[in-house]
Amino acid sequence: MSFDDLPRPTTLVHAPRLSAVLGAAVTLVAETFQETGSFKFRAAWNVVRAAPSQAFLTVSSGNFGQALARAAALAGKRAIVAMPATSAAVKVAAVRHWGAQVELLDPARESRAAGLARLAAAYPEAYVASPYDDPLVIAGNASLGREIAALGRDRFDDVVVPVGGGGLAAGVATGLAEAGSRARLLGAEPALADDAARSLESGRIERNESEPTTIADGARTPSLGARNWEILRTALAGIVRVPEGDIRRGVRLLDSLANLKAEPTGALGIGALLAEPERLRDRRVAVVVSGGNVDPGLYAELITGADAAA
Amino acid sequence: MSFDDLPRPTTLVHAPRLSAVLGAAVTLVAETFQETGSFKFRAAWNVVRAAPSQAFLTVSSGNFGQALARAAALAGKRAIVAMPATSAAVKVAAVRHWGAQVELLDPARESRAAGLARLAAAYPEAYVASPYDDPLVIAGNASLGREIAALGRDRFDDVVVPVGGGGLAAGVATGLAEAGSRARLLGAEPALADDAARSLESGRIERNESEPTTIADGARTPSLGARNWEILRTALAGIVRVPEGDIRRGVRLLDSLANLKAEPTGALGIGALLAEPERLRDRRVAVVVSGGNVDPGLYAELITGADAAA
Repeated sequence: MSFDDLPRPTTLVHAPRLSAVLGAAVTLVAETFQETGSFKFRAAWNVVRAAPSQAFLTVSSGNFGQALARAAALAGKRAIVAMPATSAAVKVAAVRHWGAQVELLDPARESRAAGLARLAAAYPEAYVASPYDDPLVIAGNASLGREIAALGRDRFDDVVVPVGGGGLAAGVATGLAEAGSRARLLGAEPALADDAARSLESGRIERNESEPTTIADGARTPSLGARNWEILRTALAGIVRVPEGDIRRGVRLLDSLANLKAEPTGALGIGALLAEPERLRDRRVAVVVSGGNVDPGLYAELITGADAAA
Repeated sequence: MSFDDLPRPTTLVHAPRLSAVLGAAVTLVAETFQETGSFKFRAAWNVVRAAPSQAFLTVSSGNFGQALARAAALAGKRAIVAMPATSAAVKVAAVRHWGAQVELLDPARESRAAGLARLAAAYPEAYVASPYDDPLVIAGNASLGREIAALGRDRFDDVVVPVGGGGLAAGVATGLAEAGSRARLLGAEPALADDAARSLESGRIERNESEPTTIADGARTPSLGARNWEILRTALAGIVRVPEGDIRRGVRLLDSLANLKAEPTGALGIGALLAEPERLRDRRVAVVVSGGNVDPGLYAELITGADAAA
């Protein structure tokens, strides 16, 4: 492992106690120590390097904004991150920490899309980066699939990956295929935001009617991106709908049995094993933990199970 | 990185945000994902493999008990772990989880030493394993020093390591020296348990008068082990006394800026940078995070800063 490579190689965590509880041989593929604390840096770094632009614009209240800010700073380029004015102060501060320009959007005055269009007009030199629906995003995330496959083409029976907009899943699918992995790819999606599961069932992109209320904030996307869907419609062997309680239990078990701090979206894969244990019984499963950025107050609540009834 | 090697290779975490706050280029050397969640497995595994015995006995309420239990189980041998009857139920359960026989000691009826002597007589076939003062323990922990040195002989200016009984520090010193590292070795010890700092000053082993009340429970040892002292008296460039508030801040910063869950003893190195920032200003520092096993309730309190005044 070199420190000078970007993106950082993923972190593999052997988890025998977690495996005993889940009934499968689980290896955690943790992106929680990636630059800016989530896999999103893989995509952002590829966008910033490959797009022929000196400035980048995105709308994000979460991990992609931080990742784009950091990637642009490392590349000596400029990032403009539009964030809802209601974003947590700590998230706005994190984006600013990496040197990005923050533009606060007032959801009461204009939609996200309208705000983005306005900023794109104001900064015509900027490349408008989608957090998930962009070939450069998929290609950036593919590096994680290649890293998993490099552990051995037959090392894992299954790879389980969180699904929101589908950029991570499509990237992992692409990387696994490139490297000749024979592992089965399963998605893990909040039951409260099951547009991707419904899309697989109907054969076309389905949407969530309104913004899902799941605690897994990285999966509150309206639907799969079109480019991701083209890949995932054939690459995914299935999607597990994860109830909120299993997402929370996933965070708690990662903490108590593997010492791994995950954000709720990052715990979707473990939640999938909790929700449908028979599906992966006794199999060798790589579980992608996509990120670790979570407010300390919420994390404290999750690990102490103050919410156990939820 | 192979999954089949034991002990597990350490986990390197690049920490740019933490580095910015601490004023030094910090690389975290995390043993929190080691087998049983702390560096202690390195020692236990070496003891179990190298000692010509089929049974092992130790007194431990903490990480060494778990590590010895796990190591014995992996080697097909037997472990007997004596624990104070006042130990947290979760810790007793963890030792039993790995298949060890637990013997509860009543502190009101006999001392630790008397209890150990009684059990050693009852199980004469068992090798009595000290958690820190044993050449096999030092040799086992030396693997961590070799791993750090393998990153480059001149990769780090300093290596900072927690000091309790001195087994980890002596092992890291041994491994660094074997591999020709030129890094300076600094200890990090709770100010409330500063026997090692006093020993370096006086030139002989000093003891804590009573069991220290530090939150860093892995450093509540009465004194350095004699074998460790022989190494550390020359190998350590110094010891930083870390106030309790800086240990707690260390846990909090590892969580919020590096997504790394550490137990209080594991955060001593970051606490040392907080306590004496000038000592390591602008240097390239490897900070050993020795373990991550901490009660969720305490951890929740630490990361939310409910104790900030302490």
